[in-house]
Amino acid sequence: MTGDRKPTLGVGLVGHAFMGRAHSQAWRSVAAFFDPPYTPVMAALAGRSRERAAAAAAALGWAAVETDWKELLRRDDVQLVDICTPGDSHAEIAVAALEAGKHVLCEKPLANSVAEAETMVAAARAARARGVRAMVGFNYRRVPAVALARRLVAEGRLGRIHHIRAQYLQDWIVDPEFPLVWRLDAQKAGSGALGDIGAHIIDTAQFITGDRLVGVTAITETFVKERPLAADAAGLDATAEGGAARGPVTVDDAALFIGRTAGGALASFEATRFANGRKNALRIEINGSAGSLAFDFEAMNELWFYDGTGETATAGFRRILVTEPEHPYAGAWWPPGHGLGYEHTFTHQVADLLTAIADGTDPEPSFEDGLQVQRVLDAVARSAASGSGWTPIEDPQPTA
Amino acid sequence: MTGDRKPTLGVGLVGHAFMGRAHSQAWRSVAAFFDPPYTPVMAALAGRSRERAAAAAAALGWAAVETDWKELLRRDDVQLVDICTPGDSHAEIAVAALEAGKHVLCEKPLANSVAEAETMVAAARAARARGVRAMVGFNYRRVPAVALARRLVAEGRLGRIHHIRAQYLQDWIVDPEFPLVWRLDAQKAGSGALGDIGAHIIDTAQFITGDRLVGVTAITETFVKERPLAADAAGLDATAEGGAARGPVTVDDAALFIGRTAGGALASFEATRFANGRKNALRIEINGSAGSLAFDFEAMNELWFYDGTGETATAGFRRILVTEPEHPYAGAWWPPGHGLGYEHTFTHQVADLLTAIADGTDPEPSFEDGLQVQRVLDAVARSAASGSGWTPIEDPQPTA
Amino acid sequence: MTGDRKPTLGVGLVGHAFMGRAHSQAWRSVAAFFDPPYTPVMAALAGRSRERAAAAAAALGWAAVETDWKELLRRDDVQLVDICTPGDSHAEIAVAALEAGKHVLCEKPLANSVAEAETMVAAARAARARGVRAMVGFNYRRVPAVALARRLVAEGRLGRIHHIRAQYLQDWIVDPEFPLVWRLDAQKAGSGALGDIGAHIIDTAQFITGDRLVGVTAITETFVKERPLAADAAGLDATAEGGAARGPVTVDDAALFIGRTAGGALASFEATRFANGRKNALRIEINGSAGSLAFDFEAMNELWFYDGTGETATAGFRRILVTEPEHPYAGAWWPPGHGLGYEHTFTHQVADLLTAIADGTDPEPSFEDGLQVQRVLDAVARSAASGSGWTPIEDPQPTA
Amino acid sequence: MTGDRKPTLGVGLVGHAFMGRAHSQAWRSVAAFFDPPYTPVMAALAGRSRERAAAAAAALGWAAVETDWKELLRRDDVQLVDICTPGDSHAEIAVAALEAGKHVLCEKPLANSVAEAETMVAAARAARARGVRAMVGFNYRRVPAVALARRLVAEGRLGRIHHIRAQYLQDWIVDPEFPLVWRLDAQKAGSGALGDIGAHIIDTAQFITGDRLVGVTAITETFVKERPLAADAAGLDATAEGGAARGPVTVDDAALFIGRTAGGALASFEATRFANGRKNALRIEINGSAGSLAFDFEAMNELWFYDGTGETATAGFRRILVTEPEHPYAGAWWPPGHGLGYEHTFTHQVADLLTAIADGTDPEPSFEDGLQVQRVLDAVARSAASGSGWTPIEDPQPTA
Repeated sequence: MTGDRKPTLGVGLVGHAFMGRAHSQAWRSVAAFFDPPYTPVMAALAGRSRERAAAAAAALGWAAVETDWKELLRRDDVQLVDICTPGDSHAEIAVAALEAGKHVLCEKPLANSVAEAETMVAAARAARARGVRAMVGFNYRRVPAVALARRLVAEGRLGRIHHIRAQYLQDWIVDPEFPLVWRLDAQKAGSGALGDIGAHIIDTAQFITGDRLVGVTAITETFVKERPLAADAAGLDATAEGGAARGPVTVDDAALFIGRTAGGALASFEATRFANGRKNALRIEINGSAGSLAFDFEAMNELWFYDGTGETATAGFRRILVTEPEHPYAGAWWPPGHGLGYEHTFTHQVADLLTAIADGTDPEPSFEDGLQVQRVLDAVARSAASGSGWTPIEDPQPTA
Repeated sequence: MTGDRKPTLGVGLVGHAFMGRAHSQAWRSVAAFFDPPYTPVMAALAGRSRERAAAAAAALGWAAVETDWKELLRRDDVQLVDICTPGDSHAEIAVAALEAGKHVLCEKPLANSVAEAETMVAAARAARARGVRAMVGFNYRRVPAVALARRLVAEGRLGRIHHIRAQYLQDWIVDPEFPLVWRLDAQKAGSGALGDIGAHIIDTAQFITGDRLVGVTAITETFVKERPLAADAAGLDATAEGGAARGPVTVDDAALFIGRTAGGALASFEATRFANGRKNALRIEINGSAGSLAFDFEAMNELWFYDGTGETATAGFRRILVTEPEHPYAGAWWPPGHGLGYEHTFTHQVADLLTAIADGTDPEPSFEDGLQVQRVLDAVARSAASGSGWTPIEDPQPTA
Repeated sequence: MTGDRKPTLGVGLVGHAFMGRAHSQAWRSVAAFFDPPYTPVMAALAGRSRERAAAAAAALGWAAVETDWKELLRRDDVQLVDICTPGDSHAEIAVAALEAGKHVLCEKPLANSVAEAETMVAAARAARARGVRAMVGFNYRRVPAVALARRLVAEGRLGRIHHIRAQYLQDWIVDPEFPLVWRLDAQKAGSGALGDIGAHIIDTAQFITGDRLVGVTAITETFVKERPLAADAAGLDATAEGGAARGPVTVDDAALFIGRTAGGALASFEATRFANGRKNALRIEINGSAGSLAFDFEAMNELWFYDGTGETATAGFRRILVTEPEHPYAGAWWPPGHGLGYEHTFTHQVADLLTAIADGTDPEPSFEDGLQVQRVLDAVARSAASGSGWTPIEDPQPTA
Repeated sequence: MTGDRKPTLGVGLVGHAFMGRAHSQAWRSVAAFFDPPYTPVMAALAGRSRERAAAAAAALGWAAVETDWKELLRRDDVQLVDICTPGDSHAEIAVAALEAGKHVLCEKPLANSVAEAETMVAAARAARARGVRAMVGFNYRRVPAVALARRLVAEGRLGRIHHIRAQYLQDWIVDPEFPLVWRLDAQKAGSGALGDIGAHIIDTAQFITGDRLVGVTAITETFVKERPLAADAAGLDATAEGGAARGPVTVDDAALFIGRTAGGALASFEATRFANGRKNALRIEINGSAGSLAFDFEAMNELWFYDGTGETATAGFRRILVTEPEHPYAGAWWPPGHGLGYEHTFTHQVADLLTAIADGTDPEPSFEDGLQVQRVLDAVARSAASGSGWTPIEDPQPTA
């Protein structure tokens, strides 16, 4: 606690809704469990309303408040900007922060369009040359079970991959009376289920397999075309009649696509907010010539592994409780069998980010990774919009 | 046991391999559990080799043996012909049997092509006018859990259907050294995973929802292009070198497709023989506006049902053990919790068939149903062959 | 089918209720799947009411009917007597049949008392000397998953056994208005949940582990003390008032006991008919120094196995689908993943019995095994009746 | 953030091992999620080694360090003492803290003996009269699924309780070479599996049912009688030979007991550290006349509920994902389906404690509750030590 005290790294957070709360808990907890090379300091939080930002800062543990995110870039006590706003502002904030010499952690999807994402990648490449780091927040990579899955594939335990089967199933807008929140507005959100949760399964599946989609054919649907205006969105274009005012849903409720990977696998993806009873079922199955994996985030501490190389009589999918010291991230927390929760993935994310910054290496997933996911999303949207034609995907950084 | 003795109905079986054994067990067992209107008499079995047919007849309980299936049509003690041969002979046998006035139970898929299936439908319609019945053997409809699923949908318990998610996953040819059996030969089998197991999930999903596919986009793949010639197929085109002889796999190893239904649902289908660790995983999930269902044949006595209309605090997928007297077929067997097995579905099939014959009604699934499945298979194959273009499906018998 | 025709073995069945139906299906099916050394002939069925016995014989496939089981012993075409009556008649029938030189298959529990069971063992021993065989029908030993469990323990895959955790949970009398059927009458049934289903878990747990209980302490309870008289039991002692007539429940609704085995394991047992929602949950867990097993009959085609000797990172309970050719009994039926049902256990039972008769070996479980289970039941009942005191169990045939 | 700033409450922590880390995370997180009436201030941590305590304080977020817990009682900035030491010091610290006017949160088990626990209850009662609060840390009550279970029982959804089936299964000392840590030393730990994890299932089962054990019969076992001395325990009584030094295990490896409750239920309990493959399987099943519940901490976000009062055809155990706003505690965290982890239970615990202090009510579980659990543990130990005789349990605070 004296001469060997760690250096600090000041963090500025933009946005304090769902993602802002999750990221705050990560910054608050990381040093207690991971012995990171920097002690993070929760320097300042930026939000448009001073009152709400101040309340959030007090509850979440941020030392100061700004009402303009640009002020964060001017603060000397901020070395890293953590972007937790809707996708339409990612590009502007991230590019500015990188240019200001701040490391950036940007929530997914990287942007609302390929063009924006390309701009961000250019900024990240320029910053990288100056030792400034950029990371996109695909937090599900940091579920211990997902990280273990990736390790097993990398070790060759699955052999040649034949099948990827990925679904992200939610049900929070099944009710047609659920209001028209910003996530259902294409201007704000870019797309619907596709960009919000489809992005996660694209990244997670590609991360686990180390393989990438090269083409897709897709269908999307908006089951409920109009919804009641949300209370705080009512100002936008609502007529005065109050509860009766409705507006059009401008994003997809569900997106399905099938495709092929560079490595020769067949892949099936489905993202929907209409899977009644499924609350946050990010499900991935991988079948290979030597074995198989299955994962469902609703039971996030479990990875199911089938080893097809042993004796037949005792072969079967095994439920690995991913809470052992031998497992990724798990040893930092509790004894075996004492499971982790959703927000732990964000703590792992910042632990890895701090390590990469200290080591002078590029954190993963990079903005290039984020751009590649954006290109898949774009191909899916174009295929769906054009009668489900086959749509190739250009890879900005093809695997060797 | 005297005056009210039931009439008998003589059955002739064509084929005595896997399906022939399953059908035999059904004919042998049905009267002990279902009180059918006819007592079936296992009159004769037809097989090419007299020796093997005789051994099968002795083991399986058939009274006589024929080496030509046409002889069954001439027998007065045969009123029903049960076709358990590969798909390439279905049309010829079924049409002849119907024309000979025999009721027909024909294994799925109905035929190896739409054209053949259309011929069979024409014959079935002509026969129907004479009181002769035809049924195609999609046995999975008769899993009690599947029949219960259909009932719940029909009762409106799921509301409007948004999603169908169907997979049939097997792994018996993952090993590249598995030989080139007839099921991998397009001439015999028509197609691979698509027609063999894809046909089942198409029928089962459409049966449960009462809805039909109107278009698809598809991809198929043959992961292992050449395989060792099977011992009994070696005569076909093997070179003389014995074990080293290989031949081309002419069918698909896996088929994926997504589509839309007449009722407005999005559907995802996958049939594969390369899902390592999945042995007979016919899995179906249905999500509707009021509730959801999930089924996996590997746990065939369970149906998972989510009722989205009750209180939130206790909502959850419930594991219904489909073994109650209130459940389809189950009451005929054992007390609750005493599960059924695979072959029971065939017993249910013949019980329903005998009842339909006695009632003078058309058994389901009809040859028209079989033709419609054939058209879906054909659309999938055409889409896959033409770069995954969207391919509409004509319905021979659209639902009102 | 000529010179090598198999010898036949005539069977006479006593009783045609639940167990009689299950045994009939076994006799009817065994030759189609197992190639037994004898072709069983379903010679005659004995039941008190000629009318009901004749109807059962017609449905179940028995060639003749007797109204007195003693007539079966006089028939030359009966070489084996299969006893499916309530426990109070087992001893009389079995002893007489064995003395008449008939092989005997007797349903469990072997008898309603230790004294009766001892008489039966004496008769079985005398018969054995004359080549006449006796077997008690603990059918759950023949669930493929249970047989595989036994094999894994015997192979040392679990190491030293530390824990046995066995439950048999049903719920068919939770409703206090469920009537007073014979199974709730101590005169007929001997005991309640204890003898009916507790006997099964005692036998199954001892079978899997190859170990035996040496002492227990127990509690039993009758939650519902009086019930409406059953329609067909009303003649016994009902007062005339019809529906209002009630009688005392004279057996246990539930029995719990804990104990120690000869091998040093701790064991916990629970048998109940009041586990709401559990329909036929025969559940067994075994924990050993090298691994563990778990089984639940409600998912009878699955065995869960934990191998504690491999790498930690991929250790987990694996769900073995016990339907492979490598698994006990499974190869005789269907391809992998095509599960079996309840009655298959009876088919396996008679297949093994026919083999033992042909081989001149003693079938298992023997009457001695049945007597040992009876002694455990007796110790449980005595412990419960005497304030849960520790009660040692004498083993008639201690393991070496 | 000005006039309405909340009052603070200073906390002093004793001990910084496993439990100290978990409690620290709770104090650090509670204000971010629960809006507690006090803002907790992590004032000081006490540990014997200044160096290790200082390192822990830095990592875990405590402002100051003491090397004697008594110093915490003298600090004006400490209003609450949180005791996370082994059980042998609980009584001394808790009594002194309460007498010093500090609120106390004491880890379970309350003490290592009934006598100590009685002293603590006396101190708690005296303190209560002065507005000073005492709580024992049975954290599993605060798993949302467990709290929901309790609510369902309290609402009458299970009807009359017939069965309690509770197990706490771990496997961390299956290896005979695992060292003789303090938890295996009766002087430090009081007992083994019984007091450590058995205490949890006793409390949890009684909490859920609102019912209490009135008598038990028990067996315990120490499977491995001697173990290598732990590195830091080697000073105690090790001979000098280094690695070869072994010492006797003086606590139970496993404890089984069955009993009856005041409300007439039968209960079965098992606590073991030898259940190979079970990592932290705190499992509870409750069967009642109207429904049933099942819970396993290894899947801590799920509660299984069987409603026996609805239609039979759709009855089944439903998997409730306990992550909805309607569920206890869950609404404070993340959207539905985003599960919680082990340490969240501690956050819930301090949230409830702070509320009780502010409200001037007694937090639950009280020291009386802890004493009652201690009496059950004592009865189990006495029964096991005396040949498993029936042992009644005196309730210090019987339910009405």
